[in-house]
Amino acid sequence: MPLFGAIEAGGTKFVCGIGTGVEDLKTVHVPTTSPGETMKATVAWFREQAAGGLEAVGIASFGPIDLDPGSPTFGYITSSPKLDWRNFDFVGAIRSALGVPVGFDTDVNAAALGEARWGAAQGLSDCLYLTVGTGIGGGAIANGRVLHGMLHPEMGHIRIPHDLLRDPYPGGCPYHGDCLEGLACGPAIEARWGAPAQDLPADHPAWALEAHYLALALNNWVCTLSPKRILLGGGVMQQPRLFDLIRQELARLLNGYIQTSEVTSGLDRFVAPPQLGSRAGVAGALVLAEQAYAAWHGENE
Amino acid sequence: MPLFGAIEAGGTKFVCGIGTGVEDLKTVHVPTTSPGETMKATVAWFREQAAGGLEAVGIASFGPIDLDPGSPTFGYITSSPKLDWRNFDFVGAIRSALGVPVGFDTDVNAAALGEARWGAAQGLSDCLYLTVGTGIGGGAIANGRVLHGMLHPEMGHIRIPHDLLRDPYPGGCPYHGDCLEGLACGPAIEARWGAPAQDLPADHPAWALEAHYLALALNNWVCTLSPKRILLGGGVMQQPRLFDLIRQELARLLNGYIQTSEVTSGLDRFVAPPQLGSRAGVAGALVLAEQAYAAWHGENE
Repeated sequence: MPLFGAIEAGGTKFVCGIGTGVEDLKTVHVPTTSPGETMKATVAWFREQAAGGLEAVGIASFGPIDLDPGSPTFGYITSSPKLDWRNFDFVGAIRSALGVPVGFDTDVNAAALGEARWGAAQGLSDCLYLTVGTGIGGGAIANGRVLHGMLHPEMGHIRIPHDLLRDPYPGGCPYHGDCLEGLACGPAIEARWGAPAQDLPADHPAWALEAHYLALALNNWVCTLSPKRILLGGGVMQQPRLFDLIRQELARLLNGYIQTSEVTSGLDRFVAPPQLGSRAGVAGALVLAEQAYAAWHGENE
Repeated sequence: MPLFGAIEAGGTKFVCGIGTGVEDLKTVHVPTTSPGETMKATVAWFREQAAGGLEAVGIASFGPIDLDPGSPTFGYITSSPKLDWRNFDFVGAIRSALGVPVGFDTDVNAAALGEARWGAAQGLSDCLYLTVGTGIGGGAIANGRVLHGMLHPEMGHIRIPHDLLRDPYPGGCPYHGDCLEGLACGPAIEARWGAPAQDLPADHPAWALEAHYLALALNNWVCTLSPKRILLGGGVMQQPRLFDLIRQELARLLNGYIQTSEVTSGLDRFVAPPQLGSRAGVAGALVLAEQAYAAWHGENE
């Protein structure tokens, strides 16, 4: 079995992994500081762990990133708010340091891939993975393939109804004010209620409002992507009541219009937590490494 | 070149076509009355035109329809508001009458296919076709394949912000009130302003409001599907001012967040009318026939 490397690059840490699959995946955390420092520690760990046996590396990165294989900046982090990382050639840096094929995608697309391969969306041709934390991001699989399109989805920035009488908080997105992320990400909850989400008790009105916003978004994705399952991860989703509140609100919003067993009788499975938990992203990066390995061998035989 | 049949089944008429491609596609209209009557006229026309030479038929149907090949009601119109057509085995009826392989999809998915093959989205792996008329429906192509998922998209039923101070009209969707279709389809325009859309002059405030709602929806689909082009067809889009109003409003809503050439400098091409016009659906049905023919030959060689 070939040995693969996996990197989930986040805003505060890199999760680096090495293994042949999710079962034997060994991981380590590297703090996200400057590209020079973080990459040095990352590459050193892979060299030490793999001892020359690495066949490919997959990168699941924070964004925005350039995923267009025809672009001169393919594999770069592009207009990131993290200035040190802006215009950083992530794929090029790993490929030249480790000398192996490199797969590349967004952190949420990779998490969707990981869950479809080893987690809660196994065997499903169409699914959606959403993370609700510092930001809100989504990755979709359609007809068995990750949806990229023109750029990559930026699902946190859809617009949803916002009743200012019920919720006068204007929204915190610097680009859009009260887009979904501006209303429902972790920092928005803290700004609205004056306390971080994890400190709010289960009976706090924050959760019904949060479920309302997330259910509006899920309604829109059910009507647009028609996924067979929706997985909700991220820090905000650690509140256990939230799943049931979202399912109830989604059923109310759909109002019987979508007549499928998933929606009419299977909402507990249709809207569910990821099975790989915080390992979904790095597991998905391992799938990206596999795909890069397969593509390289397909092209070089 | 094999000869194919194509049916675009709409609420008021069937557009039936026969040809080897869009260039030689000959069409006829059959009124949509009862299944018995409409199917009899449709089948008679195909028999007369093809004289036994038909290789496959594609059906682009109003919905909801069952597209799941594993379902016992695959090929049926399911919970349609048209009671006569509810639980009608559309694919079975055509297959047994004409004895050829039958392709089947929604009218909007087929229109997306037709435009991707011969129209304004040629060569694009990811595109969106939207029709704004009696209802609002969308078909998406992702990674070169029509997006189906759990059921099929029901894009008209996404929820968007609705400012009741600017627009007190409560929305006309029997399921959702002020979903996109409830606010922005042709009958909603007529109910709000007291006159049908085609009678409203180009400087009527109806058009800025319509552009606002459609741009909110486009914003959501750009952030979710990341299409490389969006084609807007249907009766409401016959107002020529609407395209520019929508583009301006979409740019305002995205507010520089999506940095791609399509959005930053190419909005005139990114949001565009379909090239096949009212023939997009029947042309797409021809592509469905081709696909059914290819699949049948692949399985039987």
